[in-house]
Amino acid sequence: MQIPPEISQHFAEHLLVAAIAQDATTNEVLMLAWMNQEALLQTLETGQVTYWSRSRNSLWRKGESSGHTQKLIDISYDCDGDALVIKVEQVGAACHTGERTCFHRSIPIAETT
Amino acid sequence: MQIPPEISQHFAEHLLVAAIAQDATTNEVLMLAWMNQEALLQTLETGQVTYWSRSRNSLWRKGESSGHTQKLIDISYDCDGDALVIKVEQVGAACHTGERTCFHRSIPIAETT
Repeated sequence: MQIPPEISQHFAEHLLVAAIAQDATTNEVLMLAWMNQEALLQTLETGQVTYWSRSRNSLWRKGESSGHTQKLIDISYDCDGDALVIKVEQVGAACHTGERTCFHRSIPIAETT
Repeated sequence: MQIPPEISQHFAEHLLVAAIAQDATTNEVLMLAWMNQEALLQTLETGQVTYWSRSRNSLWRKGESSGHTQKLIDISYDCDGDALVIKVEQVGAACHTGERTCFHRSIPIAETT
């Protein structure tokens, strides 16, 4: 698997990239997590999304304990190579709270139209 | 404007939250940027999205020089209060390259079905 040079360079300097998981069917944003190079390589090699857990300081294959896995459908990367959008088929809930998405609460906004 | 307590606490400890901008019409992810508390408050108060530029170390009202503004439509926040999804009406290109989205390049993936 080939990692684009912008991303490899970012890994070399900063170790982690931000990874936005998006439901491939609904385009709902499910979660924001992080990947190191090994997590990205494992994701590309296995087709199952693996992150780097900053709290546990270890690789974290999404769903390894919950069963709520993410099958890789598509990965795109941004203009400065420090963030990914990963389209996935989400099994069950993406959020540890049991909600479909981690972004299940809104901030009220004023009408500005 | 009221910022939810989880997010206020995160600002107090870490200064910045990640902000994922998503096209409110197509649900395409446009960019990943950062907000400090002042950027979030200005966004809520003006209805125009303002970020914190980590490279310039200053508030960055999106489109202030390019005209490619983002009108705030909706904000949601994640389970641990350190990331936002901001649905926007994007004027012109979100990316400084002129592309509609910063995530305009894909990493080839193998077929795993």
